[in-house]
Amino acid sequence: MATLSDIGVSAFINILTAFAFLLAFALLRIQPINDRVYFPKWYFKGQRKDPTARNFVGKIVNLDFKTYLTFLNWMPEALKMSETALIDHAGLDSAVFLRIYTLGLKIFLPMMILALLVLVPVNVSGGTLFFLRKELVLSNIDKLSISNVPPKSYRFFVHIAMQYLFTFWTCFMLYKEYDTVASMRLQFLASQQRHVEQYTVLVRNVPRVPECSISESVDHFFKKNHRSTYLCHQAVYNANKFAKLVRQKNKLQNWLDYNQLKFERKPEKRPKTKTGFLGLWGETVDSIEYYKEQLKHLEKRITMERQKILQDQKSILPVAFVSFNSRWGAAVCAQTEQSKNPTLWLTSWAPEPRDVYWRNLAIPFVSLTIRKFVIGIAVFALVFFYMIPIAFVQSLANLEALERVAPFLRPVIEQDIIKSFLQGFLPGLALKIFLFILPALLIFMSKIEGHVAHSKLERRAAAKYYYFMLVNVFLGSIATGTAFGQLDAFIHQSPSEIPRNIGVSIPMKATFFITYIMVDGWAGIASEILRLKPLVIFHLKNMFIVKTERDRDRAMDPGNVDFHETLPTLQLYFLLGVVYAVVTPILLPFIIVFFLFAFLVYRHQIINVYNQRYESAAAFWPHVHSRIIASLLISQLLLMGLLSTKKAANSTPFLIILPILTFAFHKYCKRRFEPAFSEYPLEEATEKDEQENNEGADLNLKPYLADAYLHPIFHSFEEEVELEEVKVDALRVDKHDAHTSSPPARIQESPIASPPYPPEHYTYGYDYHSYNYYHHHEVQHYQG
Amino acid sequence: MATLSDIGVSAFINILTAFAFLLAFALLRIQPINDRVYFPKWYFKGQRKDPTARNFVGKIVNLDFKTYLTFLNWMPEALKMSETALIDHAGLDSAVFLRIYTLGLKIFLPMMILALLVLVPVNVSGGTLFFLRKELVLSNIDKLSISNVPPKSYRFFVHIAMQYLFTFWTCFMLYKEYDTVASMRLQFLASQQRHVEQYTVLVRNVPRVPECSISESVDHFFKKNHRSTYLCHQAVYNANKFAKLVRQKNKLQNWLDYNQLKFERKPEKRPKTKTGFLGLWGETVDSIEYYKEQLKHLEKRITMERQKILQDQKSILPVAFVSFNSRWGAAVCAQTEQSKNPTLWLTSWAPEPRDVYWRNLAIPFVSLTIRKFVIGIAVFALVFFYMIPIAFVQSLANLEALERVAPFLRPVIEQDIIKSFLQGFLPGLALKIFLFILPALLIFMSKIEGHVAHSKLERRAAAKYYYFMLVNVFLGSIATGTAFGQLDAFIHQSPSEIPRNIGVSIPMKATFFITYIMVDGWAGIASEILRLKPLVIFHLKNMFIVKTERDRDRAMDPGNVDFHETLPTLQLYFLLGVVYAVVTPILLPFIIVFFLFAFLVYRHQIINVYNQRYESAAAFWPHVHSRIIASLLISQLLLMGLLSTKKAANSTPFLIILPILTFAFHKYCKRRFEPAFSEYPLEEATEKDEQENNEGADLNLKPYLADAYLHPIFHSFEEEVELEEVKVDALRVDKHDAHTSSPPARIQESPIASPPYPPEHYTYGYDYHSYNYYHHHEVQHYQG
Repeated sequence: MATLSDIGVSAFINILTAFAFLLAFALLRIQPINDRVYFPKWYFKGQRKDPTARNFVGKIVNLDFKTYLTFLNWMPEALKMSETALIDHAGLDSAVFLRIYTLGLKIFLPMMILALLVLVPVNVSGGTLFFLRKELVLSNIDKLSISNVPPKSYRFFVHIAMQYLFTFWTCFMLYKEYDTVASMRLQFLASQQRHVEQYTVLVRNVPRVPECSISESVDHFFKKNHRSTYLCHQAVYNANKFAKLVRQKNKLQNWLDYNQLKFERKPEKRPKTKTGFLGLWGETVDSIEYYKEQLKHLEKRITMERQKILQDQKSILPVAFVSFNSRWGAAVCAQTEQSKNPTLWLTSWAPEPRDVYWRNLAIPFVSLTIRKFVIGIAVFALVFFYMIPIAFVQSLANLEALERVAPFLRPVIEQDIIKSFLQGFLPGLALKIFLFILPALLIFMSKIEGHVAHSKLERRAAAKYYYFMLVNVFLGSIATGTAFGQLDAFIHQSPSEIPRNIGVSIPMKATFFITYIMVDGWAGIASEILRLKPLVIFHLKNMFIVKTERDRDRAMDPGNVDFHETLPTLQLYFLLGVVYAVVTPILLPFIIVFFLFAFLVYRHQIINVYNQRYESAAAFWPHVHSRIIASLLISQLLLMGLLSTKKAANSTPFLIILPILTFAFHKYCKRRFEPAFSEYPLEEATEKDEQENNEGADLNLKPYLADAYLHPIFHSFEEEVELEEVKVDALRVDKHDAHTSSPPARIQESPIASPPYPPEHYTYGYDYHSYNYYHHHEVQHYQG
Repeated sequence: MATLSDIGVSAFINILTAFAFLLAFALLRIQPINDRVYFPKWYFKGQRKDPTARNFVGKIVNLDFKTYLTFLNWMPEALKMSETALIDHAGLDSAVFLRIYTLGLKIFLPMMILALLVLVPVNVSGGTLFFLRKELVLSNIDKLSISNVPPKSYRFFVHIAMQYLFTFWTCFMLYKEYDTVASMRLQFLASQQRHVEQYTVLVRNVPRVPECSISESVDHFFKKNHRSTYLCHQAVYNANKFAKLVRQKNKLQNWLDYNQLKFERKPEKRPKTKTGFLGLWGETVDSIEYYKEQLKHLEKRITMERQKILQDQKSILPVAFVSFNSRWGAAVCAQTEQSKNPTLWLTSWAPEPRDVYWRNLAIPFVSLTIRKFVIGIAVFALVFFYMIPIAFVQSLANLEALERVAPFLRPVIEQDIIKSFLQGFLPGLALKIFLFILPALLIFMSKIEGHVAHSKLERRAAAKYYYFMLVNVFLGSIATGTAFGQLDAFIHQSPSEIPRNIGVSIPMKATFFITYIMVDGWAGIASEILRLKPLVIFHLKNMFIVKTERDRDRAMDPGNVDFHETLPTLQLYFLLGVVYAVVTPILLPFIIVFFLFAFLVYRHQIINVYNQRYESAAAFWPHVHSRIIASLLISQLLLMGLLSTKKAANSTPFLIILPILTFAFHKYCKRRFEPAFSEYPLEEATEKDEQENNEGADLNLKPYLADAYLHPIFHSFEEEVELEEVKVDALRVDKHDAHTSSPPARIQESPIASPPYPPEHYTYGYDYHSYNYYHHHEVQHYQG
């Protein structure tokens, strides 16, 4: 059991670490050479240019020493921007994400004050050390917690009353926040410029009718069932082979660039290569000529493949983006049941084009059910049994095994210092690697589940990550033993035993969690602002790859709020706060420091760094809400278990009604607010339609919508190769599919000139989506 | 442990009882005087007239002795009608209800054959008595069950394989049946004549806007948000006071009738009455004149109240029936989210007019949430703690207490025979009364929950009844002790202990359930066909009340399939069958006899007797399906528990995957078929709309829809009082509310002449809906 001074030492170390990070950040960010690492958002917005300086050194190092004195001024700066401006600047997702931190502060600040004023005295006076104040400071931290209250004490009524109060307060704040966020979302959707996704519905599982192409049957179906609102549709192509060719082309382009750069640096020697396997044998040729020719050949094949895709009916997937002439029409189609067979013609709102996860569009209904089922089992196995393979790897990755595999390392390993270091390090390595790849693994699992939007993928991955953390970090730390062992124990325990067994060890683990908050929360967040990895990568790229201004733009990696990692982490902090508020209130200040600090850091990052890849209009809020409710329920159950071990039989029954009330509150909120996050009310759609009508806006929607949902690989291809004739060809074919019914005069109206999003959106991010292999963004990265 | 011969005796007694009922039925039904009791359905359809006979005796007693010889001929007759004809004759609900019985036969017949051929030999050979066939017949029934297999035997693999086979077979049949019923439902809805509910949506929680009546805001909202499809709406009036006056009027009418009848029988003496309280004191007046005058006075008040309701804006509830000019428009409105605030403007399909439960229409959203919550707790308490108040009442209702309350009964009670009879009878009385009123109690609870359709009320009550039976009949019979005790034990047991403890006692209870099936299933069903209660009541009414042909029609009580009682009972039989199929296969023949016999009886009753009060187009099927799935899951869990006590550790793990597969199948079916039961696909709506357009049907919908959803009390009032001027008045007011926007020329088009349902529908049934106190049907019964 750690004493207060232990905590103090730990706090000191962690504050020091955080401070070091902040100092490094403060120094690095004012160097002009790092400007693009610490302010990329402004570059993307076109509101910042490379700093101009008088001389070469001034371009790299900041020589204005006054700026070094105000190295913490990013904090007030981060607070300057108003919320409305922030929404404009970074989108609603980011703004609402920051609200989670303020919600944490709003919930826990009053809780902390009350808990410290009421509960700590009650706990302390329960023991014998109340008047020995000096010794108290040095004594066990448990003296401040509920553990100090003797069994059967009437003081437990105070704890129960506090639990009621805290629950009501949390629910009240949650209700207010849900209300605010829901109306923010609606307002945001209403105030948005016209977006293609407002008019478009994604139709999946289009039935294949013999002697009728997918396009024809989509056209026929919607003309019949949405006669007055149907406008046109965009087919989705199976572009696997095409994407492969584009990838090949990019590889060749890379080689060409490499050779040209080589030639530029050493103009005296033209680079040569061999035509055989991996350039190891075969005829020796001039590299630049060779790659140019190969590239030309490939481009021809790509052009042909592209034409084949657009003309071949078989390459059209049984999926379509159907557009309507009004938001009302789209809202109606998205929310209604279309077909007699409920597994066909499934409609849902189209995600915005940059949010579409193309690969999952064509999964049929039965397969979706099976995938969900399989992934459900896999997640369960991952959460409860992940330690088994890791323990296996750990048993292999010891020094003896290493010596056997690589005997030449023996002299090094046998040295005592290195040996002890490795022995401490190796077994943990497998676990560290696993935890590092876990988020990517969860995203991968969500992809297999078959969701069609990146935002949905991240939300599902966040849910899985939360379960993992709940079981392995929270419950796993409280109850000793592996999660698997826990599961086994739970099955053989009675339901009333479980909260008891966990509840009783909760106060004992407070110090562990305080340390956890300081390491993961304080120092971890400080390292977030330093951006060490992007910093290094940017400078490496700058040194070796960047040739043009455009390349430099590409070398910037702004990153984004990784919702699938940050949301579960945040939810864990809420859980800790809610659980310990009554049990060990001394934990609350640490959580509040975390919320405050993380709020500042993320506000700064969102304003200056991150560039979100998509905008889901705060679609994640219902999850945040319901997981905080879940935390409340868990805390109530555990407190009941804890009190029952304290023989507080006279007071425990008073707690029973609390979870019921909490659950009822959750149900109410769900019905009251959740539809705002899943549906688009007709009232809203009509208003927006009318408003646009009254403004006399340009209502020629067809050209606007025509290519919005063309697979991005075709866009990128056009942008880069700029084969005008191919484009015209493709458009002709495209239009033929999409608007068989529209008068020919219309077709000319549809230039590709006005993509619905500025091209910047297509250029960045996405790079860890390594499974989305035919996404054009990666294609571009191959060029770098 | 009962032997086979015990079972044989019990079977003999029950078969005898059933046979006696059938014989009585066969004799009574061919008596002309009972014709209206046993064939009311045909009278309602107008296809049967009172039997004509040569003389007075022939009118009462059947003298054609040939008909007595063929007294079981109703069985083949019941099978004659084809399913299509049956749907026409009695509606889809009844036809699909009968399919549950055939489904039971389809599932259990092959199961029984396989189980008897494979499992019984396996079980028997496991013991020692295999070759002693003679003794076997007389020995314990357990020799045929899984109990006879020694622990650790490899024979259990046969049981596990059978469980797999039975589960797959059941799922296969369930899938086929769900598919059939879903398409039957869609076909039925498509083939239906034009119904008002196809065009109408129920809108709840209309917000009250100051300076704007409900009617105006409904009009405004739907004109804006459903511009092209909105037709008109019908306001819902708060008719509480009006209903009270109508009830008073009916009471007076009864007294008048009574006095007039008295006067007719004794014309020499005009009946007198006193004007004071209960006719006990006050001025003595001529009864007939007095009631006539009172009635006239009351009718005037009713007329005024009616006008007040129709004119006063405040009596309009914040609910409306909104009608559209096409099925498509209504389908769109019913399935979409209307308002930004998801608790306002809640739309759902309107139930058909005779299915509306008017009293619950005006419950606001928050109240609904609370009601659901409260009733949820109440149902839980009812299921687990109902024995507490009953035990209390039982402790009061003993002979000593009776003697103390009514000392004058002592000489009677003290007699030995009477005493022992009462002592056996009294304690069970409270329980019997409770079980008798339970269905009505559950309907009442569902009403408090706030459902707006009688069909929904019955479905919810059925769910509650099912939980009750599952816990108290099934689990309660298997594990000894009260449900409350069970609950306590469950909480303190580990989850893996529960199926073990229950599983181990399952084979021992087989004989109990066999007896239960024979008493409740065989004899109970046979008593259903006899209709003893309606028979007695009809003849009593006929003797004392019936004056006119119309009265005689009213005295018929056709009854109906009480879904909220029959469905849970049926589901219990499925549960028994599925659970015992592997454990004690000898139970299966008894269940099959039940299904066969009940199928015949209910088919006969549906064809000749029952008159359904509403048509929900088989909306109950998803519940039937999911409860059979639940039965499968329960059976698998219990078998796992049972096998684990048999130390069959090598075979039990093979069972684990079965519940997972079953649950996945359920999930799939739910997504595949359930939308057909909750939504109306647009494809269907469009087709039907177009078909009607092409047929050139009369499409003047406004007058057709105008008064479809007028509170029935106004209809009944009009039909009976026939105050023409009032009606015209009312219509004018009504039209003013409903079509403020329509051109005045239209108003004249709306006569009340074509009610959407033939008047017969308004005339019968509903009489046990005693809580629905201002429903006009009851009003009519008061007159009888």
